Amino acid sequence: MFSTLGTVFKVTTFGESHCAGVGAVVDGCPPRLSLTEADIQRQLDRRRPGQSRLTTDRDEADTVAVLSGTENGLTLGTPIALLVHNKDQRPADYASMSQAPRPSHADYTYQVKYGIRAASGGGRASARETVGRVAAGAVAEKFLRERFGVEIVAWVSAVGEVEAPGLDVADVGRGGVDRFDVRCPHAESAERMMAEIARAKEARDSVGGVVTCVCRSVPAGLGEPVFGKAEALLAQAMLSLPATKGFEIGSGFAGARMRGSAHNDPFVLKAGRLGTLTNRSGGVQGGITNGEPIVFRVAFKPPATIGRAQQTAGFEGEPVTLEAKGRHDPCVVPRAVPIVESMAALVLADLALIQSMRR
Amino acid sequence: MFSTLGTVFKVTTFGESHCAGVGAVVDGCPPRLSLTEADIQRQLDRRRPGQSRLTTDRDEADTVAVLSGTENGLTLGTPIALLVHNKDQRPADYASMSQAPRPSHADYTYQVKYGIRAASGGGRASARETVGRVAAGAVAEKFLRERFGVEIVAWVSAVGEVEAPGLDVADVGRGGVDRFDVRCPHAESAERMMAEIARAKEARDSVGGVVTCVCRSVPAGLGEPVFGKAEALLAQAMLSLPATKGFEIGSGFAGARMRGSAHNDPFVLKAGRLGTLTNRSGGVQGGITNGEPIVFRVAFKPPATIGRAQQTAGFEGEPVTLEAKGRHDPCVVPRAVPIVESMAALVLADLALIQSMRR
Amino acid sequence: MFSTLGTVFKVTTFGESHCAGVGAVVDGCPPRLSLTEADIQRQLDRRRPGQSRLTTDRDEADTVAVLSGTENGLTLGTPIALLVHNKDQRPADYASMSQAPRPSHADYTYQVKYGIRAASGGGRASARETVGRVAAGAVAEKFLRERFGVEIVAWVSAVGEVEAPGLDVADVGRGGVDRFDVRCPHAESAERMMAEIARAKEARDSVGGVVTCVCRSVPAGLGEPVFGKAEALLAQAMLSLPATKGFEIGSGFAGARMRGSAHNDPFVLKAGRLGTLTNRSGGVQGGITNGEPIVFRVAFKPPATIGRAQQTAGFEGEPVTLEAKGRHDPCVVPRAVPIVESMAALVLADLALIQSMRR
Amino acid sequence: MFSTLGTVFKVTTFGESHCAGVGAVVDGCPPRLSLTEADIQRQLDRRRPGQSRLTTDRDEADTVAVLSGTENGLTLGTPIALLVHNKDQRPADYASMSQAPRPSHADYTYQVKYGIRAASGGGRASARETVGRVAAGAVAEKFLRERFGVEIVAWVSAVGEVEAPGLDVADVGRGGVDRFDVRCPHAESAERMMAEIARAKEARDSVGGVVTCVCRSVPAGLGEPVFGKAEALLAQAMLSLPATKGFEIGSGFAGARMRGSAHNDPFVLKAGRLGTLTNRSGGVQGGITNGEPIVFRVAFKPPATIGRAQQTAGFEGEPVTLEAKGRHDPCVVPRAVPIVESMAALVLADLALIQSMRR
Repeated sequence: MFSTLGTVFKVTTFGESHCAGVGAVVDGCPPRLSLTEADIQRQLDRRRPGQSRLTTDRDEADTVAVLSGTENGLTLGTPIALLVHNKDQRPADYASMSQAPRPSHADYTYQVKYGIRAASGGGRASARETVGRVAAGAVAEKFLRERFGVEIVAWVSAVGEVEAPGLDVADVGRGGVDRFDVRCPHAESAERMMAEIARAKEARDSVGGVVTCVCRSVPAGLGEPVFGKAEALLAQAMLSLPATKGFEIGSGFAGARMRGSAHNDPFVLKAGRLGTLTNRSGGVQGGITNGEPIVFRVAFKPPATIGRAQQTAGFEGEPVTLEAKGRHDPCVVPRAVPIVESMAALVLADLALIQSMRR
Repeated sequence: MFSTLGTVFKVTTFGESHCAGVGAVVDGCPPRLSLTEADIQRQLDRRRPGQSRLTTDRDEADTVAVLSGTENGLTLGTPIALLVHNKDQRPADYASMSQAPRPSHADYTYQVKYGIRAASGGGRASARETVGRVAAGAVAEKFLRERFGVEIVAWVSAVGEVEAPGLDVADVGRGGVDRFDVRCPHAESAERMMAEIARAKEARDSVGGVVTCVCRSVPAGLGEPVFGKAEALLAQAMLSLPATKGFEIGSGFAGARMRGSAHNDPFVLKAGRLGTLTNRSGGVQGGITNGEPIVFRVAFKPPATIGRAQQTAGFEGEPVTLEAKGRHDPCVVPRAVPIVESMAALVLADLALIQSMRR
Repeated sequence: MFSTLGTVFKVTTFGESHCAGVGAVVDGCPPRLSLTEADIQRQLDRRRPGQSRLTTDRDEADTVAVLSGTENGLTLGTPIALLVHNKDQRPADYASMSQAPRPSHADYTYQVKYGIRAASGGGRASARETVGRVAAGAVAEKFLRERFGVEIVAWVSAVGEVEAPGLDVADVGRGGVDRFDVRCPHAESAERMMAEIARAKEARDSVGGVVTCVCRSVPAGLGEPVFGKAEALLAQAMLSLPATKGFEIGSGFAGARMRGSAHNDPFVLKAGRLGTLTNRSGGVQGGITNGEPIVFRVAFKPPATIGRAQQTAGFEGEPVTLEAKGRHDPCVVPRAVPIVESMAALVLADLALIQSMRR
Repeated sequence: MFSTLGTVFKVTTFGESHCAGVGAVVDGCPPRLSLTEADIQRQLDRRRPGQSRLTTDRDEADTVAVLSGTENGLTLGTPIALLVHNKDQRPADYASMSQAPRPSHADYTYQVKYGIRAASGGGRASARETVGRVAAGAVAEKFLRERFGVEIVAWVSAVGEVEAPGLDVADVGRGGVDRFDVRCPHAESAERMMAEIARAKEARDSVGGVVTCVCRSVPAGLGEPVFGKAEALLAQAMLSLPATKGFEIGSGFAGARMRGSAHNDPFVLKAGRLGTLTNRSGGVQGGITNGEPIVFRVAFKPPATIGRAQQTAGFEGEPVTLEAKGRHDPCVVPRAVPIVESMAALVLADLALIQSMRR
């Protein structure tokens, strides 16, 4: 259940960490959109492990195949099936962990839920599942860019205690973000973040972080009252990512500490349309985009799988000491950057198509 | 679009601030559940304005009628239609505001989206729409309580800069929460919060706040990978409420600053089942409930409609000074408490029914 | 479950035969459509029992109230709640039947499904539920007529063994249809049908019939491959009506007896667009409308509730003789005419909005 | 849009006639169901073209790969992705037809709908799309058989004017059905049907037919009022198949000619449960299964693509003579048998899971 997201631009993902392949079916993409595998591969490459010494050493080439839905480089309006084969289907590294559920991982809850779970890796809770999301998100992003000029840029704004200063959301671009392996465009913060990740890795530990995302040139009017508010669907999309613990839009939790007179965004005339002087709303008012940049932040906890010894209990309650032996990311946020962008694109593409019905 | 929430326990809300009535249709409620209007009225009364000097003076009796779906006090398994008539259908108070969109309100975005908007009040973006949610949520809560013994309790944990200390989530109950008008069960904090709201009101201003919610005795195994993770659906539900800007579960944004060795929740044997020693996961691992209390926080911005003069622009961009004349809540969080509980109940009832298919 | 139909133009019906009221919530209707209660009442009046001596004597005034979603006679784009109060909430007439499930009625299956059922009438299986569909369908029809000029006309083409000759589907209108109580526009057939119904009534029996429907000026391009083919959604809509046993589009079952060379509809130029010379396809090719009239037929069985004595068994298997005492339609097809039109309108409005996203 | 069917047992199909592959993703299949590729291959082999001289000569091996969702021969409860590669990706045979839309085919409507269409074959309207349905249906059928003992058997009951006599629906099995290439278990009728197909083929023409299907041992209580009536969802599923023009359940159109006293199915005690003496209801009352065999019939028109010359018009309206050169089925009903069974299984698996929530 619930492997499908969206109402008219729908994505269904499939695959777990060590089966034959992972991917997605995109149904509802408009016809006559120019689309090739290269459009998709770019974001998959940014998501891929093994890009830098910050992430896991696993080499997953992750080459996408478009199985259906396009002809001669154009979409047909029919479902676009996207497949990435898993290279590394049944590793032994995880075997030692099958006796006890990893703390704060999904082993226990999957077992309770299904009465069975994938014997290795995280199954469907693995970050590997996000391959399908990123592939589908690349399609959504292409549509949004070509139809509306939408630009979506995410970056790492915190790693552990290291927090980058606020950026000008009108300016930040993927080039700047990718300048550093940690994907924080602020040089000094990036260095400190990378040092923090290195320290966590050395301690056979992991560390959390925050990804901030801006969506520019989103047309006003997207988002559906009541349950389909833009921020509600973005929150769902982000909290559906592994390891996320929080979501804020615009002023977020800081806004809860403010007075209305200080928080309200006054309207002003901007290049012929009504805009706002400030953007504490984060680009959304009453659940509907107002034409200002959408800005949101996503909190990621430290990865649950760590090399350090942990005292915990086995499935029957017996005391167990766990030490993960596999290759694991000490910090997921650098690789989460294209994933957050993809999820934002999926939500906005769906809302944009829905709104296009109202003329 | 999107006035329906849920997959098998579905609620559809209808109504805007000043039409004939507001309400909801609940489809998918199991049959043979004992249900009368009194079960629903209790939470509606907690949501109602005019309960205390903290909230708006409007007197909305908000008496619910169950139009269908029950007979002799039992649900039939068929749609339960719930209706609350609006008493106060076309007030003049809002008329002066129709010239200019209220800053940080939905006036502008609704106009752009639909090319029309309700002439008065907030239309569908009004808090009045939440009447239907609370009525439907009371049905969901009854089901959860009777079937599983689930207890859902929310409270105000912050108003403006005033933050209550952490509470023992195993203990807090609605009685304690309702002891103070502000719905914070911590007496000293409650006094300070009420003073802060009074100050904001006096300044013809408004103030934000935070609602924390705990759901106890939720069975393990609820929540659907991938897009239907329990925290994802809770986040959507909460961010679909008017004036919300953020959502955190368990450790939330603070978790992003931690190391994995400090963040992980070790398993222990608890009364015959596997539990966790700590609960930084917030009752959810891999998107699926683990039997520990679900704990989450929701940030509410200060209400947009304030009596203080605001410099802004009219629909054509002309400079305008706005001063709201109506009766407005200076702070929404006390009344948001039953609304947050209701949304949590709707999400959990849906997930519980879905999981009940897997045996 | 499943009280909602549609993807973007969504209708949710509620209510059973003897609760407080029946109705529907229409979500997704475009904004700025002119809509008043009179637009809806017209079709409700055609559906109403007691219009003629052919139908049941019950007098159900069935006055609709629009509770939400419109202001000053225009739709707001928000949910339109439609309510019709039930006058006749707890009749005794049905009481004698509660001991034994009526043959070919829903008493037994509802009891098995829910472990409970409405004590009187047919509950949710009653034709009374169609009030909400007709009200919602009137909204859909208004939209289709104003936006595209669509005309939907249904009529009775058979009652029992009496079959009307084929009509010119380009010409038939509601005025002609309503000229006779039986709603067959062919005078001679209408007389014979009315005689047949009178004979069935006199015999305290019931009789089946067929409703044919044409939808004219439907734009080409509506209908979604694969599971959303226009004929698939029409078939679902029609078979969701009480007492229906069959659906055919275009050539229908007769088409199964033909050769391709005789069945194919050749293309020809028609007033500047491509049309077909014949219309055995019934206006749909590959699940998508081709601009020709959509023509389909729906088979209705004879009503299950009859005054004649029936030998059957009670819930525990004991032999029972049933004789219905209430007031029952001897034939449902005359009243089914506006219901069939309404369901067709709901399906087409949904498909038209979906297609409007593709430009 | 609409490439997904089902509410909790959901299938999403992808692929067109000449892309890289066709298949389906099944989401919502219960965990711990024994499932291997062999379970699926059996029905795919029955669907495959080139099985007999009655069908097209194309050799499509159609070997299915299960990409995800199972481990060690058991389902994990996660999405099951099923892929069949297309061997024959870009045939030239269809090229000559690209100038003019084939009469009664989907060429014209796809072009109008999408402004683009697959250059060859029928794209998504091709029978090739049903590969994914049959693969997914085999999973549904396995679940229904193992959980409830459900048996689904379809057969050819008419080809052109040749109609088989009524069969005992309690007895017919797939072995008997497959004894003749035409898949009619009545020997004499089978011979006449095969002769009729041979005549049509020789005439470079095509011929229609009817498939009848019985579903035995379906538990009582499946099917959801109102829009999810079992017969409504079966009708949608069947009319979503290429070339279908009609659907009947139980008495069908013949029932419309009957009196209620003759049509009603009296209840009787049957092996400890309430059953019916006759089965004109076709196993469904009020939209809900009653435990009797579900019996329905589906009308298929003659295939649109024929070798005989046809006078028609090109996209611009110019007169064109078309003669199909490719290899085409003169009659689809023999191969439609496993497809109809698969669609029935998908509908019933979904309804069975939904009903399993109500205890």
